[in-house]
Amino acid sequence: MVDYVVYGRGSFDQLSEILAPRRKNNAPMIFLVDHFFENNPLVRRVPADGKDKIIFADVTYEPKTTYVDSIAKQLKDEFGEVSGIIGIGGGSTMDLAKAVSLMMTNPGSSADYQGWDLVKNPGVYKAGIPTLSGTGAEVSRTTVLTGPTRKLGMNSDFTPFDQIVLDPELTSNAPVNQRFYTGMDCYIHCIESLQGTYLNEFSKSYGEKALELCQKVFVDKDKWDDESDDQLMMASYAGGMSIAYSQVGVAHAVSYGLSYLLGTKHGIGNCIVFDKLEEYYPEGVKEFKYMVKKNNIDIPQNITKALSDAEFNKMIDVSLGMKPLWENALGKDWEKKMTRERLRALYERL
Amino acid sequence: MVDYVVYGRGSFDQLSEILAPRRKNNAPMIFLVDHFFENNPLVRRVPADGKDKIIFADVTYEPKTTYVDSIAKQLKDEFGEVSGIIGIGGGSTMDLAKAVSLMMTNPGSSADYQGWDLVKNPGVYKAGIPTLSGTGAEVSRTTVLTGPTRKLGMNSDFTPFDQIVLDPELTSNAPVNQRFYTGMDCYIHCIESLQGTYLNEFSKSYGEKALELCQKVFVDKDKWDDESDDQLMMASYAGGMSIAYSQVGVAHAVSYGLSYLLGTKHGIGNCIVFDKLEEYYPEGVKEFKYMVKKNNIDIPQNITKALSDAEFNKMIDVSLGMKPLWENALGKDWEKKMTRERLRALYERL
Repeated sequence: MVDYVVYGRGSFDQLSEILAPRRKNNAPMIFLVDHFFENNPLVRRVPADGKDKIIFADVTYEPKTTYVDSIAKQLKDEFGEVSGIIGIGGGSTMDLAKAVSLMMTNPGSSADYQGWDLVKNPGVYKAGIPTLSGTGAEVSRTTVLTGPTRKLGMNSDFTPFDQIVLDPELTSNAPVNQRFYTGMDCYIHCIESLQGTYLNEFSKSYGEKALELCQKVFVDKDKWDDESDDQLMMASYAGGMSIAYSQVGVAHAVSYGLSYLLGTKHGIGNCIVFDKLEEYYPEGVKEFKYMVKKNNIDIPQNITKALSDAEFNKMIDVSLGMKPLWENALGKDWEKKMTRERLRALYERL
Repeated sequence: MVDYVVYGRGSFDQLSEILAPRRKNNAPMIFLVDHFFENNPLVRRVPADGKDKIIFADVTYEPKTTYVDSIAKQLKDEFGEVSGIIGIGGGSTMDLAKAVSLMMTNPGSSADYQGWDLVKNPGVYKAGIPTLSGTGAEVSRTTVLTGPTRKLGMNSDFTPFDQIVLDPELTSNAPVNQRFYTGMDCYIHCIESLQGTYLNEFSKSYGEKALELCQKVFVDKDKWDDESDDQLMMASYAGGMSIAYSQVGVAHAVSYGLSYLLGTKHGIGNCIVFDKLEEYYPEGVKEFKYMVKKNNIDIPQNITKALSDAEFNKMIDVSLGMKPLWENALGKDWEKKMTRERLRALYERL
């Protein structure tokens, strides 16, 4: 679990005080900030002192292991040691900060640690400050990374942040489409896990609460307000907590193929896929379509139209490799139910 | 926050594996077990090896600072150092384990640390395994202790457990009345915090989920089953988490007076008080009375009948000292609303 959680409007301004006891000798704090904020007033509020450094993270694409390795190398070359890595941004920035923290103290490449419990040493101090709500990356035990051979996280007990600062004010200026896609990452995760075969009361309680908060924000309300930011930030947190003992399903398994091949970002990729999953999640998809319409959102269509057979096969390979997701969604005999032909037909509809 | 949370039926049997990496040199693990289990088969499942010691904790009364100090002294005299303190029991045992862990590494008496952020050093490793659901002590940042001059916890960042194991099977044989009183500790806390003036979306989300789970168990269901244990354990966890940014109210403020003077245990004390609070929490008290009747529970009456003026005054002093609780319940001008006379009249009705 994350050790320290601060939640509240304006709590970003406590960051200087929060970091003070974590500063070691003369080693700097490194602020990894989503490049979206490069000319944003938020940057002036980052408490960078002395040798501290702000690095604008290029999250045009989701983090790659090569990018993680290059930032860690740059920091080791420049400073030797750092006091901590502070991620400020969306899910990609959260994952990048966690991964860079781990690579400051673990040898080799982050690609060596894609998997479960392969990380050997605790990373340097790391804090996460989300500016988009929905991914749950602020509380998860993984970092989703695209490596040379696969898209898979560094899942380990050392991966969660030491501290998170949940300040709903930071999400208030997010672009409307982006906010929706990322919020839907949470919504879709809840539908998948609550209807899945892996579930216990812990994950169910968190999943139900996250779902209810998403519905308040995107179904019930007619206008975005401060309370919407508050609620979606808690939905993201609860959705992330619910992953502990549950698993996602068809939408995530299929969208991993899309993002591996086409670089489609996770939130929008899930939306593109979920939009076509009436057969698997009839009620959820119906509500999703209602939210899309109500919030006047554009879901891209026909994105796989021009792909070759080899490209479809690559996506199918990546997707069918996500065995626990399929088993959660379709049961132990999922391989009989989800054939390559059926999955190909689904990809063709996207 | 608690660092590691395991939730699941039968997870108690993972305890040996969970503790293995925490064993230091030759120092023993100390299992503080609620004396209720003294002749219970659960004791044979406690993974005590080598020099490990099982201490049956006398929780007839809620933990006193003198009791905490005496256990810590006994352990230091016998072993010098210990690897960890593992609490197995209800809320009193949880609090006792947390306090003993802290007193293994902090000088003086636990009474010196009753308050906020007075604890100087991290305690030894500590794990909590609740066998009753409702208090939220398994996740809280405090330990409620009765000291020479007051009933107040050791609130600190060092207080939460390093590990909790939430195994709903352990609660299945709890006495029916006790289970109800402790469950109502959670229910009452939720009513008080959700209707209070201190609240944000973090605490509200957890409080609403805990309340809903309590209602499922005690209002909706006609029979206790495994799912009831699962749900009440999550209610307790969520209720405990909701304390982070909220506060309790009238029932807790009044019941602290009762427990200080009469030693009334927390769960039953809250029930005795809440039963008479129609004026403050009309809907909650109505539903509480329904649950009492439906679950065929006995709420003691007339317990203050024989008290002297001096005794009433002592309870009133203790209760009015809980300023944040009163302010949360009645607003900033609570002192005008809750006079000594009015509180005396309330105590006389209990």
